[in-house]
Amino acid sequence: MNNMDNQLIRTYRLFLKDSIRKVIDFSETAQSRGIAPPPLEKPYTEDARRIDLPSCDELQDVSRMDIISAIRKRESCRSYRPEPLSLKELSFLLWATQGIKRKLDPGHALRTVPSAGCRHALETYLCILNVDGIEPGIYRYLPIEHQILFEFTEENLQHRMVQAVLGQPYPGEAAVTFIWTTIPYRMEWRYGLAAHKVIAIEAGHVCQNLYLACESIGAGTCAIAAYDQEGIDRILGIDGQDEFTIYLASVGKK
Amino acid sequence: MNNMDNQLIRTYRLFLKDSIRKVIDFSETAQSRGIAPPPLEKPYTEDARRIDLPSCDELQDVSRMDIISAIRKRESCRSYRPEPLSLKELSFLLWATQGIKRKLDPGHALRTVPSAGCRHALETYLCILNVDGIEPGIYRYLPIEHQILFEFTEENLQHRMVQAVLGQPYPGEAAVTFIWTTIPYRMEWRYGLAAHKVIAIEAGHVCQNLYLACESIGAGTCAIAAYDQEGIDRILGIDGQDEFTIYLASVGKK
Repeated sequence: MNNMDNQLIRTYRLFLKDSIRKVIDFSETAQSRGIAPPPLEKPYTEDARRIDLPSCDELQDVSRMDIISAIRKRESCRSYRPEPLSLKELSFLLWATQGIKRKLDPGHALRTVPSAGCRHALETYLCILNVDGIEPGIYRYLPIEHQILFEFTEENLQHRMVQAVLGQPYPGEAAVTFIWTTIPYRMEWRYGLAAHKVIAIEAGHVCQNLYLACESIGAGTCAIAAYDQEGIDRILGIDGQDEFTIYLASVGKK
Repeated sequence: MNNMDNQLIRTYRLFLKDSIRKVIDFSETAQSRGIAPPPLEKPYTEDARRIDLPSCDELQDVSRMDIISAIRKRESCRSYRPEPLSLKELSFLLWATQGIKRKLDPGHALRTVPSAGCRHALETYLCILNVDGIEPGIYRYLPIEHQILFEFTEENLQHRMVQAVLGQPYPGEAAVTFIWTTIPYRMEWRYGLAAHKVIAIEAGHVCQNLYLACESIGAGTCAIAAYDQEGIDRILGIDGQDEFTIYLASVGKK
């Protein structure tokens, strides 16, 4: 490595440290300045097509696996049987990864995964290719309503998704691919420049629940961290600045 | 926010994107240049005091909870009963978070959590205060041997840990606090500057398993992302550059 590379490596490593906290003036964050918290989920228009998901109060018919078996069996799975997921299975996976357990107030809710300061700066998009009764297309999960919102569809979706993950074939064969974006302001509102490392960590929390929940229904998943940033943001129709993709995972029956 | 803050926010957000991948010359990574992979776990000297952990082949007596209940019950837990963890419970938590399922070769092993390119750039230190039969002190997990290695102890440990997490009291009351460090070169070896975001994500994968495993044994945990970087690195005796702390979680009986 030459010196410039060394300097870059140091800069990138710095991102993983919490040294930044010592130089942040937390009295200057949006929260400290009395600005109301941003909404819990990305707003949608009233004419959006929304699909109810089966309730997650009773899930014993979907999964009965014990936690030790799920952890023991967990392995990244890159090829899938062409069998569809049921809507109840998809509902379970969405609940396990981003489901709301209790809404505290308009700006805070407890979910199935932890988040620093209860900020939950992630949104979940789905590229659905093979889920019972659901038209293939791009959807977005609405955790408050426990619904999926139809974004759009197109004939070329499968091909575009594979391109957007740099040719990795799994999202083209998967029943559904989870695409997590972040709306970083939700976390910056409270933590300023200490927000970003935490957002990355929390994407990992979410995806680990996806791994275990998949194992417990006979499905497999593969996390995807290598992708065409601008390409996937363009597919989702997000601006790449105030909202952008940070992680993906393809899911299908094993 | 003023313009300088805006520029900083943009820079920090950039870290969460995968745009960097497009400008990395992967033919220049250490792996591509034929350099052998770094060791799977941080080496230790032969005179180190190491303690065998109970095997994780049979864990039914430790935890029988189903995955749905564990996900449903999961909640950050910031106060603990003064009851100790058993060594078998600690063994289970270490296996669930960083345990090796299968060693592939000297540089690669499959664990209970996923890692990009099987790089696993994390180490697990423990601040043990209340585990049956174990002297309080700082230990390090050896995933290959499934042992804990005694690092050191001191009278003031409880107090120093609380100081190192900026006065948050939980690590002082916990039976054990997990302290994850990273040895970033393990991931940089393969991914260069695309390594760091992934390391943060993977710390989240690990900690989510800790949450669920804790729930399943009647314990609770609280992830800690706000800490005194230099202070905690000093406690662990690591250099803060080639190895440094990235995340913590305190654990105790509920």
